[in-house]
Amino acid sequence: MNYRQLSKEELKEVLAQEKKRYQELVEKNLSYDMTRGKPGSNQLDLSNDLLGEKYIGNAKAASGTECRNYGVLDGIPEIKKLMADMMGTKPENVIVGGNSSLNMMFDTLMRFMVFGTSADSTPWGKLDKVKFICPVPGYDRHFLICEKLGIEMIPVELQEDGPDMEKVLELVKDPAVKGMWSIPKYSNPSGVVYSDEKICQLASMECAAPDFTIMWDDAYTVHYLGDAPAKQKNLIEACAEAGNPNRAYVFGSTSKITFPGSGIAVLASSVENIKYSLSYITAQTIGNDKLNQLRHANFLKDYDGIVAHMEKHAEILRPKFNAVLEVLEEELGGLGILEWTKPQGGYFVSINTLDGCATKVVAMANACGVKFTPAGATFPYRKDPRDRNIRIAPTLPPLEELYEAIRVLCVCIKICSAEKLLEA
Amino acid sequence: MNYRQLSKEELKEVLAQEKKRYQELVEKNLSYDMTRGKPGSNQLDLSNDLLGEKYIGNAKAASGTECRNYGVLDGIPEIKKLMADMMGTKPENVIVGGNSSLNMMFDTLMRFMVFGTSADSTPWGKLDKVKFICPVPGYDRHFLICEKLGIEMIPVELQEDGPDMEKVLELVKDPAVKGMWSIPKYSNPSGVVYSDEKICQLASMECAAPDFTIMWDDAYTVHYLGDAPAKQKNLIEACAEAGNPNRAYVFGSTSKITFPGSGIAVLASSVENIKYSLSYITAQTIGNDKLNQLRHANFLKDYDGIVAHMEKHAEILRPKFNAVLEVLEEELGGLGILEWTKPQGGYFVSINTLDGCATKVVAMANACGVKFTPAGATFPYRKDPRDRNIRIAPTLPPLEELYEAIRVLCVCIKICSAEKLLEA
Repeated sequence: MNYRQLSKEELKEVLAQEKKRYQELVEKNLSYDMTRGKPGSNQLDLSNDLLGEKYIGNAKAASGTECRNYGVLDGIPEIKKLMADMMGTKPENVIVGGNSSLNMMFDTLMRFMVFGTSADSTPWGKLDKVKFICPVPGYDRHFLICEKLGIEMIPVELQEDGPDMEKVLELVKDPAVKGMWSIPKYSNPSGVVYSDEKICQLASMECAAPDFTIMWDDAYTVHYLGDAPAKQKNLIEACAEAGNPNRAYVFGSTSKITFPGSGIAVLASSVENIKYSLSYITAQTIGNDKLNQLRHANFLKDYDGIVAHMEKHAEILRPKFNAVLEVLEEELGGLGILEWTKPQGGYFVSINTLDGCATKVVAMANACGVKFTPAGATFPYRKDPRDRNIRIAPTLPPLEELYEAIRVLCVCIKICSAEKLLEA
Repeated sequence: MNYRQLSKEELKEVLAQEKKRYQELVEKNLSYDMTRGKPGSNQLDLSNDLLGEKYIGNAKAASGTECRNYGVLDGIPEIKKLMADMMGTKPENVIVGGNSSLNMMFDTLMRFMVFGTSADSTPWGKLDKVKFICPVPGYDRHFLICEKLGIEMIPVELQEDGPDMEKVLELVKDPAVKGMWSIPKYSNPSGVVYSDEKICQLASMECAAPDFTIMWDDAYTVHYLGDAPAKQKNLIEACAEAGNPNRAYVFGSTSKITFPGSGIAVLASSVENIKYSLSYITAQTIGNDKLNQLRHANFLKDYDGIVAHMEKHAEILRPKFNAVLEVLEEELGGLGILEWTKPQGGYFVSINTLDGCATKVVAMANACGVKFTPAGATFPYRKDPRDRNIRIAPTLPPLEELYEAIRVLCVCIKICSAEKLLEA
């Protein structure tokens, strides 16, 4: 039963039926929050050993550094090694930060605004116009940083294997286009894994701006749902090979590995960029929380330790993602009114409704007690030109709530779609 | 025996004697580091209960917030209350930050550079010239921030009760003078406690720049060595009373209360400034480490808890400060070649040698295996115009080392002073 092939009468019937279901759901007085990609509490429990003394030992790093006292700007050696391994690079290519990779991204762009990307470049704050390429749908917090900094965002379609490169190659001819955002693996919200081909294109493409920078938010680099983290060409390497060694700023964290907000963040880049960044970070802080670095290094141990830990997360998350896909298929399969992703990792399922329906669907679900990320949030300036994308974050709610929440969403989609088709 | 009253012959004799002592000290192959104001390991031990689960409870804030997950931009309520109490202000006047107040100071000035001090002010980065008043001697890391940001620093003498206000009042007539640094209590390095009179003057003085900002680094607000923390007029209150409510940005942390680098930092200001700051911080991070906030709130409990904890620090530190003063008095009392402070709190003893001697003294001590903070470090651009100020940090070394290190310093001072007087 494809909605698009139904007669007006049939659509009206469907609409009446679904409105009745909606009314029944409203009467349940649900109160579910599906807005953010937060781990569920059983995921948090996986890292509870971090709460105690177990991994603190004598509070000294392997190098002998007293972790309870001042010092060590870029991280104790064992955490640099661990985070470098996770990001697929070397310890000399990383700065271990505080608890938030978002903070490191913001600070990086603030440095570019005030100091430029290198000692001999013009600070972006001195320029009339700075533009950024934003693959869409994307992460609202990336877009918010640009908005605050007055960086003009140009949306580019995120295809199944990465951004629309034809568009990107055209845009980087403009010297005001200084950079782009990317979530290269299990992207937020679509779950896209950039192909090596597109990664190499991004690394090698000719850009009019010599200080063109790729803000590579590899937030989900080990957050797989399949058998293992997807293998992917390392951007820092690709940029070095292409003769653009300073183009890549790569970010990651343990936020969704251990405890969000109490984890460890990392910035990875060329050795030259790392030195340049540290030349300012040394004026910003004496160092980050080494006790937490020590805990994390001892708890996660090495790359294999991280992957083994992520498998435990995957075991918890697979049934949740399956629940979403199951209900979507059951309710909406073949109706021709919704497209959805089937991610192999990450934290989200991304759906596209019929054009012009997303805002209404989210509002209806909200009125029924189920909060989703506001429609438009996945686009720069919160404006989805086709008003169709909604981000589903299945990780936080318990499984039973999740089934019910997605059921609500499906009913809302059916109602809005039927109404939309009746209008046509 | 005042060196200044000695004949050349007598000075030569003194010099020979002290050179002999120096040689003996060199042969000891000492290796002491007196460069930074770090707590000693027995001070760190006072907070070892923070390393375990003891103060984590069920990892939930009193409000029920799950501290292991994302959220809460400005700190959980109990840590906001605690830090507000410590800073003598209210929870609505504070933002609880990460592990470093220096980081909050740097970020604040970065925001002023890029966004200005308020929605309707000009970003400092758009101005031809920004100047800052810097009471001297002062804290090298404040000066480094200004240097990186290209803010021109104007030194003003720090007198016994605060900065030379005559000079300050003259300087703030220049609209390019946008702010000043201050360490109002037990200042680094002189141990000066600003008088209420000068605090009120700073709050009420007429400034040509409407966005004149006082960067008030109250790093040692509870770090007393006497009977109790010195009472002092609160700058935020004083500014509000004087009709300049947005002039004060106040900073503090638990770095030298619990663990440096693994503590809690705070920014305090007017409610308007707090809102303005948060409007950008919300793009910078989702929130700081709430588990560490919870630990600290439960461990320190309240203002009285903090003071009781600081008394334990004071018990450890008093003998160290006394050792410094004892050796200085014994070696140099009445010689007319050194002035030194007798601080009632804080982390330093500040000394002034004869003009032109500080660099040589530090180099000589260094050659003898005892490292002091480089001469000049306490001045903007590392230039002490009289080359006389040296910062002594007595907290880190064990007591016996401290006696020996200060002994070395005194011998070096005697040698350099005698040589200087012989040249005259």
